[in-house]
Amino acid sequence: MQTLNVDLGDRSYPIFIGTDLFHPDNLTPYIKGNQVLIVSNETVAPLYLEPLKAVLPAVQIDDVILPDGEKFKTLAQLNAVFDRLLECRHNRTTTLIALGGGVIGDMTGFAAACYQRGVNFIQIPTTLLSQVDSSVGGKTGVNHPLGKNMIGAFHQPQVVLASVDVLQTLPDRELSAGLAEVIKYGLVYDEGFLGWLETNMSGLIGRDASLLSYAIYRSCELKAEVVAQDEKESGVRALLNLGHTFGHAIESCQGYGNWLHGEAVAVGTVMAADLSQRLGWISSDDYQRVVQIMQAANLPVTAPRGMTPEEFMTLMSVDKKVVDGQLRLILLKALGKAVVTDQFDPAALQQTLTRFAA
Amino acid sequence: MQTLNVDLGDRSYPIFIGTDLFHPDNLTPYIKGNQVLIVSNETVAPLYLEPLKAVLPAVQIDDVILPDGEKFKTLAQLNAVFDRLLECRHNRTTTLIALGGGVIGDMTGFAAACYQRGVNFIQIPTTLLSQVDSSVGGKTGVNHPLGKNMIGAFHQPQVVLASVDVLQTLPDRELSAGLAEVIKYGLVYDEGFLGWLETNMSGLIGRDASLLSYAIYRSCELKAEVVAQDEKESGVRALLNLGHTFGHAIESCQGYGNWLHGEAVAVGTVMAADLSQRLGWISSDDYQRVVQIMQAANLPVTAPRGMTPEEFMTLMSVDKKVVDGQLRLILLKALGKAVVTDQFDPAALQQTLTRFAA
Repeated sequence: MQTLNVDLGDRSYPIFIGTDLFHPDNLTPYIKGNQVLIVSNETVAPLYLEPLKAVLPAVQIDDVILPDGEKFKTLAQLNAVFDRLLECRHNRTTTLIALGGGVIGDMTGFAAACYQRGVNFIQIPTTLLSQVDSSVGGKTGVNHPLGKNMIGAFHQPQVVLASVDVLQTLPDRELSAGLAEVIKYGLVYDEGFLGWLETNMSGLIGRDASLLSYAIYRSCELKAEVVAQDEKESGVRALLNLGHTFGHAIESCQGYGNWLHGEAVAVGTVMAADLSQRLGWISSDDYQRVVQIMQAANLPVTAPRGMTPEEFMTLMSVDKKVVDGQLRLILLKALGKAVVTDQFDPAALQQTLTRFAA
Repeated sequence: MQTLNVDLGDRSYPIFIGTDLFHPDNLTPYIKGNQVLIVSNETVAPLYLEPLKAVLPAVQIDDVILPDGEKFKTLAQLNAVFDRLLECRHNRTTTLIALGGGVIGDMTGFAAACYQRGVNFIQIPTTLLSQVDSSVGGKTGVNHPLGKNMIGAFHQPQVVLASVDVLQTLPDRELSAGLAEVIKYGLVYDEGFLGWLETNMSGLIGRDASLLSYAIYRSCELKAEVVAQDEKESGVRALLNLGHTFGHAIESCQGYGNWLHGEAVAVGTVMAADLSQRLGWISSDDYQRVVQIMQAANLPVTAPRGMTPEEFMTLMSVDKKVVDGQLRLILLKALGKAVVTDQFDPAALQQTLTRFAA
């Protein structure tokens, strides 16, 4: 087991990464009161709810099982968590435990942020994507029909268990979607890590536990460094959204849940690389490396059939990175070096949209 | 105009108190982006929406008018605010303005806390209660069918305008309800202020502008001192809830909105005084002073007809001040000195409940 400490002053917390993490030592010290509510979904609960309950301390343990999928990341489902908390009379010393992927993590974290104006929570992310994305940063929230993650809060967990064991039951498509985010860390911050990923991609796809552990550790470490500098995302943290502005447009257009988040981000990252190349910031070879590593991870590299440049522009204009009407994008100055900028030729953006959506 | 600065480090803000406050100087410096959403209700908007718009800077100004009343302080109504923000494409530099009483203030503040994980807001409270209660403390939120204010966040405004002018159109019953909270500040922290209120109650009921301004200023000042010490309500701030545990039970039992919050708090305060007298902490004369000042402010001093001690106990057990199953109450050690305690004879509590609800 490896431990990564996320340094946020009095909101600091550890991430435990590796195998055999379902153990009282990893949970009991982080449960302060005598009530726990486990929030999980219909896919994950049958596999891991009982094993989790078996290692919790002897407190009042309740659970709420939500339907599985991004389309259920709504205020209505959030309210189901509040219903359960109040029916079971949980007080402000309760601890919520998120047992599931990013949707469960984001909703549970947001429920914890809002219940009685803030209670503790623990994250047990069960997808690679949520292990490398939601484990660090404290972003919680739900979607709105008019925009993804538009309603939420910053709220930090007490501890995160990133178990490589649970990844053994993850569908192939979701493993690949998680690798899209891992690749993103390399592209944004660390060309060395990108090279390591290119070398080890087949082992990662083969679910080698020690390779996965290292990929998770390094991803979380890179994200933690950035979040520690910029907890509320006013500056450098925005770089983590490489591929997300294009990607969110794809997800919105397709309806949440038809494309996996990581799949949309993979295409969005390729689009950002394409635009970066058009602006003369990266070479054609660099662009090809981006395409090839996504393909090696079994990820899509073209936008959904039938999606138009106009749809992209409309959906991107509601992105949170729009400031006073000006679209800002995360682009690549080099592999391993991203920038956030509104200084790009709109004609080049149109060319990128036309290439990927026509 | 008087100014009170609420000192919360980088979340500090001013409260302007007095007449003629609808002026660009009091608003423009606190609007950072170029979008504003005014949130108001059907009662207040016809009176003050246009006067407010007339003094705002030349930015995109949208509004959303909610139904009036505590029963609309719900997640569903909150979502109407999010709908409007997204329909009108407000970005994360937007400013929300709450124009209304406590319900509008709490919901607008919570919407601002959650929209894109946090945007700015300005409070223009239009009831005496919200001027002395919601102006300081940053508590925002909505109700749940199983409990009041169970879903919310701490979120501080940029500025508060506590206009005495708008109190001239306030119904008598709501003026009295506000005075219940003003009286509470005297009872909890400041016997001198309590004496001033006893002396000036008829002038306050008569809406004398300078008396009201002082009552608002001193109430907010007392609350600000406490909140500065204890922003997240882990300690001394809990004393501000004098009368609220009993009062919330009354509100829950009657259904939100039938009793005004201040009316329920008035009865709850008298009940807390009764229990304090039974415990030998205050004298019979002290208890009578509490009853008399509430009556002088035209407030009720007995629980709703038909409400039983058992109903009180059930409803009080879901109060946020319950920790690990132990009910804690705010009681009076003297007039001007409250304590939070779970050290009271349960039999004395039963006697109080039986006296007030039988």
